[in-house]
Amino acid sequence: MKRNPHLAKLNSHYLFPEIAKRKQVFLAKNPSAKLISLGIGDTTEPIPSSIIPALMQRAQQLGTKEGYSGYGPEQGEQLLREHIVQQLYPNWVEAEEVFISDGSKCDIGRLQILFGNQASVAVQNPTYPVYVDTSVIVGQTHSKELIHLTCHPENQFFPDLNQIPPVDILYFCSPNNPTGAAASYDQLTQLVNFAKQHRSILVYDAAYAWYIQEPHLPRSIYAIKGAREVAIELGSFSKMAGFTGVRLAWSIVPKELTFEDGHPLHQDWKRIHSTFFNGASNLAQAGGLAALQPAGIQAMHELKTFYMENAQLLKTTFQELGYSVYGGINAPYLWVKFPIENSWEAFEFLLEKAHIICTPGSGFGEAGEGFLRFSAFGHRTTIQEAVSRLHAIHPT
Amino acid sequence: MKRNPHLAKLNSHYLFPEIAKRKQVFLAKNPSAKLISLGIGDTTEPIPSSIIPALMQRAQQLGTKEGYSGYGPEQGEQLLREHIVQQLYPNWVEAEEVFISDGSKCDIGRLQILFGNQASVAVQNPTYPVYVDTSVIVGQTHSKELIHLTCHPENQFFPDLNQIPPVDILYFCSPNNPTGAAASYDQLTQLVNFAKQHRSILVYDAAYAWYIQEPHLPRSIYAIKGAREVAIELGSFSKMAGFTGVRLAWSIVPKELTFEDGHPLHQDWKRIHSTFFNGASNLAQAGGLAALQPAGIQAMHELKTFYMENAQLLKTTFQELGYSVYGGINAPYLWVKFPIENSWEAFEFLLEKAHIICTPGSGFGEAGEGFLRFSAFGHRTTIQEAVSRLHAIHPT
Repeated sequence: MKRNPHLAKLNSHYLFPEIAKRKQVFLAKNPSAKLISLGIGDTTEPIPSSIIPALMQRAQQLGTKEGYSGYGPEQGEQLLREHIVQQLYPNWVEAEEVFISDGSKCDIGRLQILFGNQASVAVQNPTYPVYVDTSVIVGQTHSKELIHLTCHPENQFFPDLNQIPPVDILYFCSPNNPTGAAASYDQLTQLVNFAKQHRSILVYDAAYAWYIQEPHLPRSIYAIKGAREVAIELGSFSKMAGFTGVRLAWSIVPKELTFEDGHPLHQDWKRIHSTFFNGASNLAQAGGLAALQPAGIQAMHELKTFYMENAQLLKTTFQELGYSVYGGINAPYLWVKFPIENSWEAFEFLLEKAHIICTPGSGFGEAGEGFLRFSAFGHRTTIQEAVSRLHAIHPT
Repeated sequence: MKRNPHLAKLNSHYLFPEIAKRKQVFLAKNPSAKLISLGIGDTTEPIPSSIIPALMQRAQQLGTKEGYSGYGPEQGEQLLREHIVQQLYPNWVEAEEVFISDGSKCDIGRLQILFGNQASVAVQNPTYPVYVDTSVIVGQTHSKELIHLTCHPENQFFPDLNQIPPVDILYFCSPNNPTGAAASYDQLTQLVNFAKQHRSILVYDAAYAWYIQEPHLPRSIYAIKGAREVAIELGSFSKMAGFTGVRLAWSIVPKELTFEDGHPLHQDWKRIHSTFFNGASNLAQAGGLAALQPAGIQAMHELKTFYMENAQLLKTTFQELGYSVYGGINAPYLWVKFPIENSWEAFEFLLEKAHIICTPGSGFGEAGEGFLRFSAFGHRTTIQEAVSRLHAIHPT
């Protein structure tokens, strides 16, 4: 059996394992260091208290003859899908277009299987590495290059779509990981029109949509006219409800979305979903349903507010230190132009001097060089400690 | 965007949705019929009572500052992996070789991504349809055919390996779904030797290993000398602990297993696991850990005994009716040679006459034609009712 040649094309290190390795090396040399991690975007606050009883109750029911259930419906529990529509996509989407899953990362992987390996692909640069790595692994870069859409402060983190060639699949993440930029109605309209013109499929990753605070910004691609004909949207409970470990997400494939030959994507996605996947945990689904009740919604708003106060604390700090800082308004990430040109050197500097772990911007693509990403997830005391350490190493 | 051509090659109906459709058609015509489903292999008994408190406790912890956790370790929780090794693979496997997942079906899909689309593939016939469908979808049948290993009563459901060409990947399911056959030490030794000789990778699906009752049969491929150099094993809590809805499984990739160029599969599998997947639910993992404590093990033995008593009741019935019946000793499936030659006609006959749903053997491949698969999952009263209905339509 020969090794899959596409796997050999990957960068040898996935970003976060590489960070974990450097952390271990540092700790081996400095065993007493109290590291603060503002690196990986992992939630830290407890799951809201109105959700916990629903998780426990479903667990208890599974131990009874009456309450036991085996395999769930292939697309996910009907009531959960209906609540997602009612709470997040009123008038835009039907429950039958919602597919419940165990995570957006997993959905991106399954989308690659849906698309096959003959499509041309565009990604933002910097980008969440999973779009690139999964594209490479399934062979999208076998006979062609990925198209990179540079997003930097100079273009307000939105690419000039007139400059890019027609493309089959366009991944777009808003609010953006890593830059924290959230696209406007006008920008998303440009995206949808581009996709319509070129018959592209837009994969709109809205995993951070819950964090949008500015009321004039769209919270779903389906707020844009025509989006149902071109866009798949990915949503997630991970950052919204603290479900990073519980695992629950969804994808939306509208019925108007078709391939060039008129075949509906919805039908193929349903087939992929039931062949490569067997449903999200029923426990997680019970939690998701509770999250979308009024008490859950309220608590998730509080959770968002808490993390965004963290973001504000960090943002103010970097501004006081005189750095250019982006994001942190509509996303729990800050994108900081660091006075050290090389991102990994800047990473090492902060690790050595302040015992703070962040994520080197270059790990998200060339256009991230010179930037650092800071996550606003964390306990308040941790963020405050980070703030004072940052001030301490910059005595100006 | 063009449709992925491999998807068009699939049979238009996945077996179980087709059965569900026929069931709906029947119920529309016969709304008062009380159907008994012995079709899809879905667990029906509650999760053992020693596991429930662990699920509830983990849920409760997630609502506290001290007990909250986000993303888990990429390969799964260490303690769970250690318990899987201790309880199921003592001396054969290390915890580092165990990868926790959300289901064997999902693992099979991810294995396809690992293998790529250039490998030659052999499957048993009849076979669990997912090996075939996922192979077709990723393009394994684009320029070549799958190799089918016919398994029928005449060869004791084990193929003559001298008759098949060298192959890159060989899927083998034992105890078998659908035939219920469990391979012997001698047969598995033949398989391992074949794989060694041809440098094939053996994907050994042991999702039903817990149901093996005859003590002289191997419960893992790693009981066979040399298997660590050629075999991946898939295991699952689904049928063992009633976790079909909770979602928890594992795969094992030994470190000795390499591609032709010497590159370890373990390394590529780890990369696929962390790129296309983000861990099984922490709630499910807490449940799995409880299942592997002494009280859980005891309860899972009782669960197995219960379902296998169901199997025995059905097996005796079919024997009394004069049918040839296989399986039901080391697997919760019965494979019945029905006196109607066409499996779908036989399916319709049983549906019409006895209001019993089973699975047509031909849905698992050509070699299943003329057979029906009956699942032994079900409440005892359901099985007893099925038994009396079967006797009633066969007045001899």
